[in-house]
Parts: sequence; C-alpha cells; structure tokens
Amino acid sequence: MKLNMLISDLTPQECRDMLTRIGFGRLACARDNQPYIVPIYFAYEFDLLYGFTTVGRKIKWMRTNPKVCLAVDEVLSHFRWMSVIVMGRYEELPNKAKFRREREHALVALEKRMPLWWRTAIAVKQSPTRHKDAEPLFYRIHIDSMTGHRAFPDAVKSKIGRADKERTT
Amino acid sequence: MKLNMLISDLTPQECRDMLTRIGFGRLACARDNQPYIVPIYFAYEFDLLYGFTTVGRKIKWMRTNPKVCLAVDEVLSHFRWMSVIVMGRYEELPNKAKFRREREHALVALEKRMPLWWRTAIAVKQSPTRHKDAEPLFYRIHIDSMTGHRAFPDAVKSKIGRADKERTT
Repeated sequence: MKLNMLISDLTPQECRDMLTRIGFGRLACARDNQPYIVPIYFAYEFDLLYGFTTVGRKIKWMRTNPKVCLAVDEVLSHFRWMSVIVMGRYEELPNKAKFRREREHALVALEKRMPLWWRTAIAVKQSPTRHKDAEPLFYRIHIDSMTGHRAFPDAVKSKIGRADKERTT
Repeated sequence: MKLNMLISDLTPQECRDMLTRIGFGRLACARDNQPYIVPIYFAYEFDLLYGFTTVGRKIKWMRTNPKVCLAVDEVLSHFRWMSVIVMGRYEELPNKAKFRREREHALVALEKRMPLWWRTAIAVKQSPTRHKDAEPLFYRIHIDSMTGHRAFPDAVKSKIGRADKERTT
C-alpha cells in the first residue's frame, strides 16, 4: 500500500465557483508564438473576467494578439489541489464614452472583489527602476472555454507501485 | 501615511537562487499564438531546467513550437513577494542511446530536488477519466533570458495617497 493521487474533472459549476472564490491567477499571452506569463487579480462574472493594470509588456502583446490563457489553482498539498484553465480573448476597455458603463462595471466588480487591487497596479509607478508608461487601464477577458481538475490522495495497492520501483532502479 | 509597495529588480544571482530553492512554477507554451499554462516541478542547473511529465497537450504543443515561458513566484503577502520570469526553449530527451547520459542526469537532478516528482506524473495514469497517452518523458528547458522582481512594503507620505483618493471618488 502506498499513497497515490487520483485526478478527476471539475464540473463547469465547480470551475465557476473556483474562479469566483480565488480571484487570482497567472495569465499567459503570446507574441510570435513566444508565451509570457504575469500574475493577475481579477473579478469573475459568468463568461467574463475583469482586470486592471498599467501598460506594460503584457498589454502591448495582448493588443497585438488577444488570445490568452488563465491558470487558477489552489494547492493544499502535493496530493490535494484544484486547478482551472481558461482559454479566452483580451478586450481593452479604454477611457472613452463608448466604454464608460463597462469601465464603471469593472471598477465596482474589482473593488468588491479586492479593495487592495488598485494599489498593486499603482505601486509600479513608485518603483525606482520603472518610471515610464504607468497609464492605468481596465480590460476584460472573454472566456471561450474552461476546464478544471481536482487531485486527491488515494491509498493504492497497485501495479503503479511496482512500476515506480522498476523505473527508479 | 499609508502602506504602499515598492518593486525592484532581482540580480541574476538572486534569480538563480530562487529557481534553485523553489523548483515549482507555471510553464506556458503556445500554438498558433494561443498560449496554454501548466504547473510543473523542475530541477534548475545554471542555464537549464529539467522536467518530467507524461505526454499531453503541453508536450504536443512544445514539440511543434519550443518557445516557452516559466513563472516562479513566492508570495508572502500582498505587499511582499518575489517573482522570476524565464524565457526559454523546450528540448525533449527521448529514450534513445544518444540521450542516455542526459536522461540519467535529469533523473538524478529531479530526484535530488523532489523525491515525489514522479508520483504526480505517474498518477495521471490512475485517473478514471484519462487512460490514453501516459507515456512518461524527460525534457529540458534551455534558458534564453530571465528577469526577476521583488516587492516590499513601504510607508509613504506621498502624492500616490492623494491620487488614490481622487481615483476612487
């Protein structure tokens, strides 16, 4: 007998619950097929994620190529974790009349989600090594698809134990 | 006076120390400019990262496009964290005579780093929802560049406080 791990799929509702509860993840964008990852805070609403940031590499890249991937996870131990992967598209919400309602909605959603969110974005301005391009901006991610997995420990008396032994000798 | 956050660059040595210490991160790959993120354990050695996994979407994508990004972070609080971003290229270490030495080296490096690493990869075989394509494989990431940042709290009596107020009213 040894401790192993089972992995099962999350239901769509479990994925949604997790995005609502966690509100933090890693966002990947890509340019010329070179991916790039940044941590983000977000507010989730059905098929949208709202975010706020300052202009930087990720924004420049997502303006060129809106395809993104968001990974949200909750790790309780090596054998017990949940993870949701979102595939989606970036849309900027510029400071223009046309986007006023959406920007206000994003602000309310984000403030409700995390009152500290704006400090992180603003703080970059304060960095001694970064002075340029700290224009704040709102965006949203349109969710095209999402998948989720849960891992949990399982005590097994199995071939896997023997396979491991063979593999490590 | 209010608590704010300063962000500064890590030195190359601090980046290397962090990769050695943490050994866990999020790897992004891309196909047709669509990024995809997966969590990975790795063993770091100067300009290489060694990993082990089973064949799945990420491996299929990295075989087509080897450009990857790895994000490693350590978050102590909202205002105190460190983060390293690696840009690199995927190389598979197939089970062939030509790669024997490299595969043995990868195995030793990974086992030293994390004796449990193989369980995660193997466990996927055990999943009731996944039966196909669980062939185990070694790979390495060649590091092309890396950057790191550190955030720390800073009590400031500043324009930022006033700017926040204006922004949220």
